[in-house]
Amino acid sequence: MTSLKPIGVFDSGLGGLTAMRALRRLLPHEDLIYLGDTARVPYGTRSAQTVVRFALQDAQFLLRKDVKLVVVACGTVSSIAMDELRKKCPVPVVGIVEPSAKVAVAITQSHRIAILGTNATIRSRAIEREVLKLDASAQVYGLACPLLVPLIENGYVRADQPILRLALQEYMKYIINYKVDTIILGCTHYPLIATAIQECLPTARLIDSGEAIALAVARLLESKGLANDPGHVGSRCYYVTDTVANFAEMVELFLGGPGDGEIYQVDIGAW
Amino acid sequence: MTSLKPIGVFDSGLGGLTAMRALRRLLPHEDLIYLGDTARVPYGTRSAQTVVRFALQDAQFLLRKDVKLVVVACGTVSSIAMDELRKKCPVPVVGIVEPSAKVAVAITQSHRIAILGTNATIRSRAIEREVLKLDASAQVYGLACPLLVPLIENGYVRADQPILRLALQEYMKYIINYKVDTIILGCTHYPLIATAIQECLPTARLIDSGEAIALAVARLLESKGLANDPGHVGSRCYYVTDTVANFAEMVELFLGGPGDGEIYQVDIGAW
Repeated sequence: MTSLKPIGVFDSGLGGLTAMRALRRLLPHEDLIYLGDTARVPYGTRSAQTVVRFALQDAQFLLRKDVKLVVVACGTVSSIAMDELRKKCPVPVVGIVEPSAKVAVAITQSHRIAILGTNATIRSRAIEREVLKLDASAQVYGLACPLLVPLIENGYVRADQPILRLALQEYMKYIINYKVDTIILGCTHYPLIATAIQECLPTARLIDSGEAIALAVARLLESKGLANDPGHVGSRCYYVTDTVANFAEMVELFLGGPGDGEIYQVDIGAW
Repeated sequence: MTSLKPIGVFDSGLGGLTAMRALRRLLPHEDLIYLGDTARVPYGTRSAQTVVRFALQDAQFLLRKDVKLVVVACGTVSSIAMDELRKKCPVPVVGIVEPSAKVAVAITQSHRIAILGTNATIRSRAIEREVLKLDASAQVYGLACPLLVPLIENGYVRADQPILRLALQEYMKYIINYKVDTIILGCTHYPLIATAIQECLPTARLIDSGEAIALAVARLLESKGLANDPGHVGSRCYYVTDTVANFAEMVELFLGGPGDGEIYQVDIGAW
C-alpha cells in the first residue's frame, strides 16, 4: 500500500478520457498519466498492423514514465494489440475487452448481447470471443459504427441533433431486430452518446467500457498490492501528440468537467 | 521534352486520388508517383504544426524518388504548409490554393464565392486570401465541413443517402443564404460528392480542386520545359503508409475506375 508509481493510460485520442473520468472517481489516491495520440487518431479505421505499431509506441512512452500498470483505454487497441503489448511490457496491461465482457455476462438475462465498436474492433471479434468464453450460450451481435467517432469528435453528442440521431437510427435498426438486452459500448468514445443510444433502445442495459476498465484496474491494484496509500492525493497529467490547444478544447466534454492536470505535447512517432 | 523524371503527388490519404484521376487524363505521358499517408489520415482535424511536420515527411519521401515536381493534392496541406514545403524542396511545389482560386475568379459573375474545406483549411484562410488577391471586389465565404471527409471515407457519396444529404443540408444552408454563384471544393475528397452538393445548390458552379491542380501542373511542365516526350506512355505507382489492402478497396471509388499501378506500403513516420 505504499507504491507511488503512476498508472499509465493511453488512447488513440480523446475517447480514453471517459476511462480517466471513471479512474479518477474510483481511485482518487492514484497518480494517472494519460497519453492521447491525437496526431494519429483515429485508430479504428486503420489496419491491425498499423494499430499494433502505434500501440507499442504509446506503451513505450508510458513505460519511460515508470508506470506500474498500463491501461489501454481504447477499444480498438484493446481488441487488436493486447498480445503484443503484454509481450513487450514488463508491467500488467489492462484493456477493455475482458472487463466489458465480464460486466455484460453478469448483467444479461436474455443472453443476447450486442457490441458496438469501430471497424477494427468489430472485425477482430475480440470482445465477442471473450463474451463466449464466459457464457457459451450467449448470442453475440457485433456492429461496426464507423461514423460515431467522427460525429462525437465534432461535438455531435446530443440526442436532439438530427445527424447523430439519423446515424444512430441507421446503426440501431440492426440491434433492434436482434432483441438484445445488453449492449457493450466497445469504444471509449461511445459513453459520451450513451443518452442518445439509450433513446433508440430504451430497455437495453449499456455497458460503459471506461467504467468497466476502472473496476478491473481497482481489483488488479488490490490483488497485486500495487495500490497507493489512501493518504496520497492522486495527481493527473496529460500528454498528447498533437498540440495542447486542440486537446484542451475537448477535455471538458470528455471528462464531464474541467481538466485537472498539466497538458504537454510529445513526439512519439519516431520510436 | 525529354525529361523522364516522375511527378510526385501526395495527400493525407485517398482524397488526392481525385487529382490523380485528372492528372492521368490530362498528362498521359507523365509517370506519376502517389503517396497517401493512410496511417495518419485525416490531416484536416490536426493542428497546423502537425500538418507541416507530416507534409515535410511526405515530400521527403517523394524527393527520394527523384521527382521533378511535387503536387500537393491535399487541401489542408496546400492551405497550411506551402511556405515550408517550398523552402525545403529543390523542385517546384504545386498546391490547390492558387489553381482553385484562379479558376473561381475566372468563372464567377456575382463575385460571391464560397470555399468548402476541412477545419484546418478554413481556419487558415489561405484560399480566401488568394481569391481576394486576384479579385479584390470578391465576397468570400469559407465554410468548414468536418463531417464530409469521414462520410466519404465510409462510402457515403450518393446524393440519395440520408446521412450525407442531412450533413450537406446543414452545411449548405449557410451557403444558400450567402447567394454565391461559385463554390471551391477546397478538399480533394469533395469532388466525390459533387453531385450531392450540386443538388443542394443547383445553380452554383463547383470548382474541382483536383482538376484545377492538374491544369496548373500541365502549364508548369510546359513553361519549365519539364514535360515528358509525347511518345512516352506514363506509368503510375502508389505508396501508402497503412496496409495495401485497406487502400486497394477504396481506389476504385476515388479513381472512378480500376487502379492502374502497383501499390506498396512504406514507413515514413520516423523521417
